[in-house]
Amino acid sequence: MSDGGFAPTPTPPYHVVIFTSQRSAHDDAGYAAAAAQMDALTRKVPGLLGIESARGADGLGITVCYRDREAAITGWRQQLDHAQAQRRGDTVWYTHYELRVARVERAYGGPPA
Amino acid sequence: MSDGGFAPTPTPPYHVVIFTSQRSAHDDAGYAAAAAQMDALTRKVPGLLGIESARGADGLGITVCYRDREAAITGWRQQLDHAQAQRRGDTVWYTHYELRVARVERAYGGPPA
Repeated sequence: MSDGGFAPTPTPPYHVVIFTSQRSAHDDAGYAAAAAQMDALTRKVPGLLGIESARGADGLGITVCYRDREAAITGWRQQLDHAQAQRRGDTVWYTHYELRVARVERAYGGPPA
Repeated sequence: MSDGGFAPTPTPPYHVVIFTSQRSAHDDAGYAAAAAQMDALTRKVPGLLGIESARGADGLGITVCYRDREAAITGWRQQLDHAQAQRRGDTVWYTHYELRVARVERAYGGPPA
């Protein structure tokens, strides 16, 4: 779930979903397939600004998904829940996750030129 | 900048700083020293709830720092800026970074038991 770098976000305000997850050591193939499906679902919901994602060697990952409207997040989450329930995957792929929905109020880029 | 896992955050609302950065290939030793200094500064500012951090093999990293009060974030950022300017580091260690300040409004943990 990455565009391979930084999300091209506008001047705030906008919205963000922060998904922190600890991968289990199980079912890499199933996880990869599901991640591709979740990525496709994520991109289908209107208002996507961009995605940033990193996962370290310890299996802890953080994905941030920026959106221009808050309303779309609930629908997107319901779709994700449904897709994951169909696959019964999240209890296999993740030992734990936290999903937080926030409103971005300020932003700065760098380093200074 | 990690507690080695998930931040123990309370029921929202609370605040978050999302720091996305692309490490350069330069000066690992200087970066490690500065990261330790930034981590110490981050923990000194009142209201820290927790830190989550991941960096992938491609050098893209995301650190999220949760705080119980928004006011502390400005002072913390000024301290970080000052510390980084003293070391002239951020132009060496990062090819780019984005820092976003947001207010967490909803949160969910999983997988479901």
